[in-house]
Formats: sequence, C-alpha cells, structure tokens
Amino acid sequence: MDENLIESARKVVETWGGKYFFVDFVDNPVSFIKRWKSDGGLVVHLTMYGLPLEEVIEQISSTESRVLVVVGSERVEGVYYGLADYNVAVGNQPHSEVAALALFLDRFYKGRELYLNFGDSKLKIVPQARGKRVVRNG
Amino acid sequence: MDENLIESARKVVETWGGKYFFVDFVDNPVSFIKRWKSDGGLVVHLTMYGLPLEEVIEQISSTESRVLVVVGSERVEGVYYGLADYNVAVGNQPHSEVAALALFLDRFYKGRELYLNFGDSKLKIVPQARGKRVVRNG
Repeated sequence: MDENLIESARKVVETWGGKYFFVDFVDNPVSFIKRWKSDGGLVVHLTMYGLPLEEVIEQISSTESRVLVVVGSERVEGVYYGLADYNVAVGNQPHSEVAALALFLDRFYKGRELYLNFGDSKLKIVPQARGKRVVRNG
Repeated sequence: MDENLIESARKVVETWGGKYFFVDFVDNPVSFIKRWKSDGGLVVHLTMYGLPLEEVIEQISSTESRVLVVVGSERVEGVYYGLADYNVAVGNQPHSEVAALALFLDRFYKGRELYLNFGDSKLKIVPQARGKRVVRNG
C-alpha cells in the first residue's frame, strides 16, 4: 500500500475540493469487480485490444448504473477481459494508461470536466495568459 | 539521462511504427525553447494556471508553424510562462501532466488520433469485444 499516494490525493482534495475522490487499495481486484457487478454496476476495461471508444461510448454513457473503469498495465490477465462489460480501446496502439483514462472520461463527460469547479475547494484559479492567479473560493 | 526510457520508446516504434517518434534529453530546456522560437516555431505550455483549452485551441490549431508543447511538473519556473506563446489550461485544477497532454493533442488533432495506424508498423490490432487479436501489418 502506497501511503504517499493516499496522502497526496487527500491533500489535493483538501485544497482543491472534490470530496468524493479517494484512494483505496484492494487485495483482490477480481472479487472487487465481481461484487461491483453483482451490485448492478457496469465494468469498463480500457485496453488497446478492445472496441473503438467512439463506437461504444454512447451506449456506456447512457447507463444508469455506476461505472467502474479498470485500467491495467502492460500485462493484464485474461480474467479482466471476461469480466468487463466493455473492453474499450482508446486507440488500438500502445499508449499511456493515464492518457487512455483521460480520454475515456473526457468522452464520458462530453468535455464538461474541463469546466468543473468543486464547491468545497479552498482555492480557485483565475485563468491567465501569463503567470498564476489563485484566489480563495467563496 | 534515462536510457531505459529511450530504449522502450525505440522498441515500441520498431513494433508499432511511427518512425518520427523519438526521445531525447536536452541539458538546457530554456535555450532549446528560445531556439525553437527563433526558428519560427510556436510554443504551447500546458499549465492549470493558463487560458482554457477550448478558448485557444482553434487559434493554436490553425498555425502553420511547428508546435512545441511544454509540460512541466509541480513547480515550473516563471521563465516558461514568459517564453510560451500560449499558456493553456486543460482544466483549471490539479491534474496529471500526461492527461493534460493527451487532451491537448486530442483537441489539436480533432480526435483523429484515435484512428491512426502507422504504415511502418509490424503489427496491427483487430478490435475485439473480448480478448486480443493481433495480426501482421501488410
């Protein structure tokens, strides 16, 4: 368990808001996914071997279930492909997992995430052509 | 200099194509940027303090100059803000630099990057709902 990761996520949330963000470690991801599904959740697995994002994103976005996004690294065991409701390719080429997640979420939220401000943030950025301008929120 | 990074990029290009991708390390990024500009290139700096992506992307995309994208980490010195032709925020909140780069490039290429296949790749993925299918290219 990477305590630094947990702590740094906690600090970002404290300053910039978004209280529903948190980091957790699970011992058994497969049983976590199975439980998610049996609770009625949808499972999306991002993999360069999957179906093109643009072909499936509308179907996925229209769900009323909670969505779990699974992102693996270089070697992902076959069980995840089988458990996923959707295996989605953000481009059928090698790429960064972080980039894949970013583009998936961008399409899922229809670009609105770029304008998100959390009501519980302490600070707020005022966009500038040059330099930095940060103000207290509220 | 991270030889592993260079080697792993080289291997990806060898298998998946895109011969114009390469990794290089520069000792003095500031003078690199200055030379880029004096050669007529455009400099885009991604920073959460900048102007919203959607406000400037059309202007940036319409350039006929070569574009250098600068992505820093937590502490970026002021000089970069001054040298950049555009300081661009991919959301005015803390975020992954990789995610910012991914979304910038996505808007820059108008989503076409998702369908890119390099002619010089040895392998090609055939998208699948489940599992993996890879074939030789050509």
